[in-house]
Amino acid sequence: MDLVVHDIDFLWTGETLLEKSSISVEDGEIVAIAGGDTTPAAREPVIEAARIVDGRGKALLPGFKNGHTHAAMTLLRGYGDDMALQEWLQTRIWPVEAALTPEDIYWGTRLAALEMIRTGTTFANDMYFYPRDAVRAFEDAGIKAAVGLALFDFFDEERRAQETSRMEEILRDVGASHGRGAPVSLTVAPHSIYTCGPELLRWSVAAADEAGLVLHTHLAETRTEVENARRDLGMSPFSYAHSVGLLSENAIAAHAVWLEPEEIAMAASSGVTVVYNPASNMKLASGAFPFRAFADRGVPMMLAPDGVASNNNLDMFDEMKLASLLQKHHNADPELMTARETLDVAIGAAMRRGDRSHRTDLFPAVGSAIVPGAPADFVLLDLSHPQMVPVHNLISNVVYAAGGGVVDTVVCGGRVLMEDGEVPGSEEVITEARRCASALVQRVATH
Amino acid sequence: MDLVVHDIDFLWTGETLLEKSSISVEDGEIVAIAGGDTTPAAREPVIEAARIVDGRGKALLPGFKNGHTHAAMTLLRGYGDDMALQEWLQTRIWPVEAALTPEDIYWGTRLAALEMIRTGTTFANDMYFYPRDAVRAFEDAGIKAAVGLALFDFFDEERRAQETSRMEEILRDVGASHGRGAPVSLTVAPHSIYTCGPELLRWSVAAADEAGLVLHTHLAETRTEVENARRDLGMSPFSYAHSVGLLSENAIAAHAVWLEPEEIAMAASSGVTVVYNPASNMKLASGAFPFRAFADRGVPMMLAPDGVASNNNLDMFDEMKLASLLQKHHNADPELMTARETLDVAIGAAMRRGDRSHRTDLFPAVGSAIVPGAPADFVLLDLSHPQMVPVHNLISNVVYAAGGGVVDTVVCGGRVLMEDGEVPGSEEVITEARRCASALVQRVATH
Repeated sequence: MDLVVHDIDFLWTGETLLEKSSISVEDGEIVAIAGGDTTPAAREPVIEAARIVDGRGKALLPGFKNGHTHAAMTLLRGYGDDMALQEWLQTRIWPVEAALTPEDIYWGTRLAALEMIRTGTTFANDMYFYPRDAVRAFEDAGIKAAVGLALFDFFDEERRAQETSRMEEILRDVGASHGRGAPVSLTVAPHSIYTCGPELLRWSVAAADEAGLVLHTHLAETRTEVENARRDLGMSPFSYAHSVGLLSENAIAAHAVWLEPEEIAMAASSGVTVVYNPASNMKLASGAFPFRAFADRGVPMMLAPDGVASNNNLDMFDEMKLASLLQKHHNADPELMTARETLDVAIGAAMRRGDRSHRTDLFPAVGSAIVPGAPADFVLLDLSHPQMVPVHNLISNVVYAAGGGVVDTVVCGGRVLMEDGEVPGSEEVITEARRCASALVQRVATH
Repeated sequence: MDLVVHDIDFLWTGETLLEKSSISVEDGEIVAIAGGDTTPAAREPVIEAARIVDGRGKALLPGFKNGHTHAAMTLLRGYGDDMALQEWLQTRIWPVEAALTPEDIYWGTRLAALEMIRTGTTFANDMYFYPRDAVRAFEDAGIKAAVGLALFDFFDEERRAQETSRMEEILRDVGASHGRGAPVSLTVAPHSIYTCGPELLRWSVAAADEAGLVLHTHLAETRTEVENARRDLGMSPFSYAHSVGLLSENAIAAHAVWLEPEEIAMAASSGVTVVYNPASNMKLASGAFPFRAFADRGVPMMLAPDGVASNNNLDMFDEMKLASLLQKHHNADPELMTARETLDVAIGAAMRRGDRSHRTDLFPAVGSAIVPGAPADFVLLDLSHPQMVPVHNLISNVVYAAGGGVVDTVVCGGRVLMEDGEVPGSEEVITEARRCASALVQRVATH
């Protein structure tokens, strides 16, 4: 056995709460779960493992799945806040993004992955620049990820040709080793319907289909996007996306805030996965995700912090609390989006379709339940942290009371990435990320 | 010297950001701050202190001030969620509160204080039951507090007589040693205008005046409270509170969500301090605090998590992020409630009036700035936590990026309550709080 976690106080499988149980892992997968009644004799064999983690005083649950992020933006943490979207993009974000180097992407993504590990995230769906370096950063950090190069053509044919050939080169170079089933896979990521012309959107759909990859885009984030789409494209964003073939069972639409009632049905029948970004939507005053409408139609959903520049962290505990509280406040209904519904969205359970009980459809390497045969992607929380005391309701404590500080141990693909709050190699990541961040803003200032 | 913190990377005084500085503390007060240019020779004398803390890799700022809480409700963490207010109170909270013992209050308050220390809070304005035991708990934990017995008469004369004699007894017993200037002081705390008749409210105002204590109440929390006040009392809550003398420079009104425009002016001229409870207001779908209107009129403000049962934690980092994000979302304005404005509300700077630059008017023992002569109530944050990297803007990192897990060291009244994340005596608090919480719900279940 590669890894055994024994005597876990509480284990949330995704469906059931077990007490005093043990779990064993081999070749990156969960192979057995022993219940509370296991006698010492029965437990003897599993204790013979290459790595043994003591689960006493801990709660185990699936790791969090970050459904939409721009990982390397950690280098811009706090670089521009409390600003209107357009001013923020034009005066703060775009000038810095133009100066980013592959090295910045590598260390920015490593810093993001470090924060994710510290706060219990085992998978991130990333969209940014220099995907080769982002792939390498996630692989070196040990968490699972889907990495897309953000494609923009601003409705310009020449730029479109550049973007598609750049993307084709990446697919050629790293596509074969980073297919959809890989721990770190590529995606095709046209940025949005307002930065990509219809030809680039259609090319992206075809490229994703051909390579068997997931398509990742921003969609229906702001009221302005809706107004502009109606004016310039003659349709609201979801309808337009549908008309160019963007919505499918292979697609992830981040934000999905502004939909007409008939577009909720369109989302449901298309099979698209929508991603709720509560902190980002609140910080930029974008609006509130229609959680109840999506949930009632069975639309697959994920939760996400977006990029650090509009958040300003990657802590899924923050997102869970904000997700539920925003629904309750915005709809004036304290019973909306329960703790259980929120946890399901955060661990990837709400993105599953059909009877795939332990692997997500979009990313087969990613586990979203603690059952034999599932990928071993899980976290252990410290039950002696005051925010986890007492345990009247474990899920409520996780969603409403806990912060990232309660995460004690993180296992991804069977590898222990953090134990007792320690992530080996953190110091180098912090040092290099600081160096890249200061050099970056200095380059921009002196430009 | 009692305590020296040397070589602090960043020190936020409340007004200014200092780099590479040191701070010395004697008899619970800050006596000196040495700037970044201090030579080793000049630093020599201050290094001779009873306790020395290394500030390298840390940021120092004033501790957080929790403006409104029910501390011992930590024992009910996660006991009832996702419910409408009345059902929640009647089926979950009130039956358990009726079964609370003084021992429960003591250990529940100790658990609260432990969570507050872990997340950087050095003062709490508490309102609950058995105040003698709450006072003892805060004193044993070492943080500063104001403690009120929640008074209710439900408009019944007999209950009023019981409540006032109970409160008079407490004032006699512990009032002298816990006056307004003490680290742990008493308050007079009529619960609200809908649970206290006008006679009890007037009695409370007179009792607070006579004893020189702060008055603490809930006010204008929900739309229902407004509707009922109009129907039953002929006025909206703030106007009614004003008519019975409740609003004054000695009063704290928690929630203050629903005010008519003219009541904002009334709040301003009365001198009352209002408390913003974003998580509680969102979780119970109560509404959004009118931050901008209060700020424009110079109304003193505090920030608070309310009780754990409607939150479910006491982490002021959560409250800061929610406070700012709720304003931006609710008013569709991403420039509202900046990081600096939010931090000011959280550290007690926004509750100061006049020229008292370092002590709060309401609680003179409580410090809200890092200046010589101020009470030594401050925290050190770990700058190598990934959520604090990089530092383009320290305040933005504190308000939007950090969680309670970044707090490294907590000093209150000159005493080091936590260093390197360790609070001595935590284990006993956790064990006893768990014991009390299970016994409590068992008593209720078998009742």
